Amino acid sequence: MALIVHKYGGTSMGSTERIRNVAKRVAKWVRAGHQMVVVPSAMSGETNRLLGLAKEVSPEKATPQTMRELDMIASTGEQVSVGLLALALQAEGVAAVSYSGWQVPVKTDSAYTKARIESIDDARVRADLAAGRVVIITGFQGIDGDGHVTTLGRGGSDTSAVAVAAAMKAAECLIYTDVDGVYTTDPRVVPEARRLPVISFEEMLEMASLGSKVLQIRSVEFAGKYRVPLRVLSSFTPWDIPLAEEAASGTLITFEEDEKMEQAVVSGIAFNRDEAKVTIMRVPDKPGIAYQILGAVADANIDVDVIVQNVSHDGKTDFSFTVHRNDYARAIDLLKTKVGPALEANEVVGDAKICKVSIVGIGMKSHVGIAAKMFRTLAEEGINIQMITTSEIKTSVVIDEKYMELAVRALHKAFDLESPQAA
Amino acid sequence: MALIVHKYGGTSMGSTERIRNVAKRVAKWVRAGHQMVVVPSAMSGETNRLLGLAKEVSPEKATPQTMRELDMIASTGEQVSVGLLALALQAEGVAAVSYSGWQVPVKTDSAYTKARIESIDDARVRADLAAGRVVIITGFQGIDGDGHVTTLGRGGSDTSAVAVAAAMKAAECLIYTDVDGVYTTDPRVVPEARRLPVISFEEMLEMASLGSKVLQIRSVEFAGKYRVPLRVLSSFTPWDIPLAEEAASGTLITFEEDEKMEQAVVSGIAFNRDEAKVTIMRVPDKPGIAYQILGAVADANIDVDVIVQNVSHDGKTDFSFTVHRNDYARAIDLLKTKVGPALEANEVVGDAKICKVSIVGIGMKSHVGIAAKMFRTLAEEGINIQMITTSEIKTSVVIDEKYMELAVRALHKAFDLESPQAA
Repeated sequence: MALIVHKYGGTSMGSTERIRNVAKRVAKWVRAGHQMVVVPSAMSGETNRLLGLAKEVSPEKATPQTMRELDMIASTGEQVSVGLLALALQAEGVAAVSYSGWQVPVKTDSAYTKARIESIDDARVRADLAAGRVVIITGFQGIDGDGHVTTLGRGGSDTSAVAVAAAMKAAECLIYTDVDGVYTTDPRVVPEARRLPVISFEEMLEMASLGSKVLQIRSVEFAGKYRVPLRVLSSFTPWDIPLAEEAASGTLITFEEDEKMEQAVVSGIAFNRDEAKVTIMRVPDKPGIAYQILGAVADANIDVDVIVQNVSHDGKTDFSFTVHRNDYARAIDLLKTKVGPALEANEVVGDAKICKVSIVGIGMKSHVGIAAKMFRTLAEEGINIQMITTSEIKTSVVIDEKYMELAVRALHKAFDLESPQAA
Repeated sequence: MALIVHKYGGTSMGSTERIRNVAKRVAKWVRAGHQMVVVPSAMSGETNRLLGLAKEVSPEKATPQTMRELDMIASTGEQVSVGLLALALQAEGVAAVSYSGWQVPVKTDSAYTKARIESIDDARVRADLAAGRVVIITGFQGIDGDGHVTTLGRGGSDTSAVAVAAAMKAAECLIYTDVDGVYTTDPRVVPEARRLPVISFEEMLEMASLGSKVLQIRSVEFAGKYRVPLRVLSSFTPWDIPLAEEAASGTLITFEEDEKMEQAVVSGIAFNRDEAKVTIMRVPDKPGIAYQILGAVADANIDVDVIVQNVSHDGKTDFSFTVHRNDYARAIDLLKTKVGPALEANEVVGDAKICKVSIVGIGMKSHVGIAAKMFRTLAEEGINIQMITTSEIKTSVVIDEKYMELAVRALHKAFDLESPQAA
């Protein structure tokens, strides 16, 4: 008997029929002897409906007061879900009780619409589990120190589930979603992409941050910090498949490096075409220059991803970075009208038609020549590299958008990701 | 400057446009210098939608566990309303904050789906009012001693508003609804029916319990118990009518008998055709007989309204009572198969085609002959009276359903209710 946390997304909770299927699945785990905590999202579409109503009454700019009310409104979607799932479990003959974040309580800071979990009191949940009840807890929300309802922001239910699993010291947190695991790359781009039965926490973090939208990145960080074994698996399997088969499916995200397991050098290829590149040419290469540029960008609430500064010539350097495409026009304007003139920069140029492609693998730490192999592979395909950044377990390049699929396929093949993972 | 409570029904909150109008109306009161607490219902249709979802996942019989979850689900409708109204007020430039019942807190017993309010803590609300904020509180719900969400049952928002007004010692509680006040009788039956500018609490209680569905009867009881001045008024007036005009509109339900005000002898005519009559003939007239009959009826969860037992002949009496028409068949069956044989009763008869017509007036206390005038009026119309019951301020008769409109119109005229109320 183990304590297990299940998390179900909005699609899994999308209709009363689907909710009844979730209940049947959870009941199967209960009957196998497990103590179960379930964290469901709002029914799909519900959060958008609620925020749409809010926008209709208050189209104005967000303030702390309006954001407090948005959280009051948006948090009801999950409260309906937990109540319905409790009813569905009771109808299956399984004792169940639902709680909103404030009832557990899940304590957060007061950053409405994007709060962070500070602590979870496990006493009430443990008492219910000891009494033989399934405990169903709203995802996405909590309560701040003054008793106000907060939400964690979009996708926050993943984080809620992992946080609950951490607080309860659960044996495993299973995230049921509409994909059946983490792949070596996007199967829509590379049909030969393989599901990874296991991936390290660090690799998952890079994959998530690089645009593999399987898991919310905050939930992965949380799992890493509290060493919660996390499994991503499909919610589309029939609820009555054998439990042993279900428990071994999907992708396990582990924080333990198994010495005996031969590490694949590269585990996956991530990519992202949401970015645009901006370069400010020939700025003075002197202390404080990066801050002068990026400080102004940050003040304008523009997030920056890749940053590259190369060696200087004649005391001048070129400074490049990428921003989200939605911010591209604003970033160019800011550099041309404010930052550039102040620095007596030569020119501001940009390109919105770029993409970022990354190879990720914990084995890169101990293997030389991985980046070189990446660059050679791209060169053989005639693909020019515009920017390069590296970390311990990742190498990213920025290239022309039109080569994205070609680059991903070539790298997937070059690093032999079609073959089954060594296990 | 006074502390005022407004309550808005589901129709007033039925769309985001209507919610913006409610906000404009409340803002008008704020700008006139009042401290405002607002208790809105869920958007019309929302509670039914939520309970419909619950029924889809759990069509089974209600248990305390399922009812707890129903409350968890149904209470979200009002939480969305308070958040939206707070946003709409903020968009009007008025500081506002919303609270769910558990945040105030509004403490109730644990009778899920029909809980009763036990206490309301006014500290938090007072602090917000002192800081210049409008406080918006969910109707219909609270929290029990163990931290579970409870609801007060259908129409409970009226009771919530009155309870909040009582706890805050508000100067007045205004119930905005889809009628513009309390009438001498239903204007659909008697076109000459007049709106009463003022009605006593006791009269309102009789009118409400007799089927004038303007206010939930529990809210009237609550208002009487805590002496909360209550006003029923229309939510369909334009939000920008002068405040003085709005504040004097509708019907004021007062607990103070104004000595100087000449009491109308009869204030209104109530009627109800939801009932059916049941008679058990010639039962032994001995102690305990009423309990033997009505105890069995209560055990079968059948509510009884009018009860009449007349003098006996030969140690036998006829015992009649009325029940809701939905319970008529069950009541007849119960009497025929169980109660009747046990009492060796002669016969069980019934009639579902009856109605109850009542005259209500606090002036009846001090005027003789009012009931006699009622009976004479009905006799002149050729209407036979089947049952009679009386209280200090009410006389009710049960008559054939087909005479209902005729009786109501004749009585309305006989007691001169077409003429303006003495003031």
